[in-house]
Amino acid sequence: MNPEKIPDIIIGRLPVYLRALQRLSEKGILNTSSQELGELIGISAAQIRKDISQFGEFGKQGTGYSIPFLIERLRDILKVDRVWEVVIVGMGDMGHALARYNGFANRGFNVSMVFDNDPQKIGQKVGGFEILNAGLLSEKIKQNKIKVAMLTVPAPAAQEVADQLVKAGVKAVLNYAPISLNVPNGVWVQYIDPVTHLQRMTYYLD
Amino acid sequence: MNPEKIPDIIIGRLPVYLRALQRLSEKGILNTSSQELGELIGISAAQIRKDISQFGEFGKQGTGYSIPFLIERLRDILKVDRVWEVVIVGMGDMGHALARYNGFANRGFNVSMVFDNDPQKIGQKVGGFEILNAGLLSEKIKQNKIKVAMLTVPAPAAQEVADQLVKAGVKAVLNYAPISLNVPNGVWVQYIDPVTHLQRMTYYLD
Repeated sequence: MNPEKIPDIIIGRLPVYLRALQRLSEKGILNTSSQELGELIGISAAQIRKDISQFGEFGKQGTGYSIPFLIERLRDILKVDRVWEVVIVGMGDMGHALARYNGFANRGFNVSMVFDNDPQKIGQKVGGFEILNAGLLSEKIKQNKIKVAMLTVPAPAAQEVADQLVKAGVKAVLNYAPISLNVPNGVWVQYIDPVTHLQRMTYYLD
Repeated sequence: MNPEKIPDIIIGRLPVYLRALQRLSEKGILNTSSQELGELIGISAAQIRKDISQFGEFGKQGTGYSIPFLIERLRDILKVDRVWEVVIVGMGDMGHALARYNGFANRGFNVSMVFDNDPQKIGQKVGGFEILNAGLLSEKIKQNKIKVAMLTVPAPAAQEVADQLVKAGVKAVLNYAPISLNVPNGVWVQYIDPVTHLQRMTYYLD
């Protein structure tokens, strides 16, 4: 299995499969089919079978997929069979929301530090975290070998902070600022922009 | 052009193209190529050409795309050449962040009302909005013919609130709660889940 060969578009669907499988598992369900999974997440059964078959032979004709087994494989493939320590930079509303978000547990991520550059905010507590001085960002990231960051600073500051993160060793940035970031090869950026999701839906409305 | 025939995966990329084009436009740039656009957003030039050609002949060999023209067409296709009034339900951290988010302007959406069911919160002000009693949700949505909602309530409440929204006439729900929603045909749901984005990146990390 050569990761370079799997199209990114397929990689993008694997976390959605994993999330759905984990939900079924929480309900005590042990087996599923591409049909059932497809109905849950709105992707065709054929697409799901094709995507999953990229990584080996999982399903059995007639009996479908073993949920615990498929979860284990997907966690392994997506490298979330471990826990990635994550920093949040920017303690505005979005940073607060993420610091208190309870959807990270058991999914491969743990928020370990939160930063802001506002003297009024530094030292305050949010969701069990003390807000650290953004001036310490590089030092703390290097010390703790952090690879993953969530960027929730205002748009005008985002590129500069991203440069700092990358220089300190961060390889994956989840960007909430509504601007495109320039990063070198080998660094990954994903964007969270509610408007793109809304526009995708209005296409279908009258 | 029959909307039913364009795969949803292509529709999902159009808002990303539109966002990039609007950024170029804000810088005063009038023309671009699929090459340039592709580098900006990390999608291949061939894919961009193919996607855009689904909607007609836009680019010219050698001169590329007229940015104002392509923006106008994409806004038209995505139905964001108008303004959709949006409600936010759930005034926790995420609801606050969205109520104050300045990325909606000029992109087809206007937050018009925000709701919560917590008596402590009802009547308070957030980003210029007075938090309304969630008990008024159906009434207000019907009165104002709202079609689009952002759902930022806790997971255990999400399905029930979604049912109310749908019953009152909402056709598009952007769901921030980490659960899958069941909605009838003709209603669209999109999910914002930071973990799926993070997992898509950790796949590529060592």
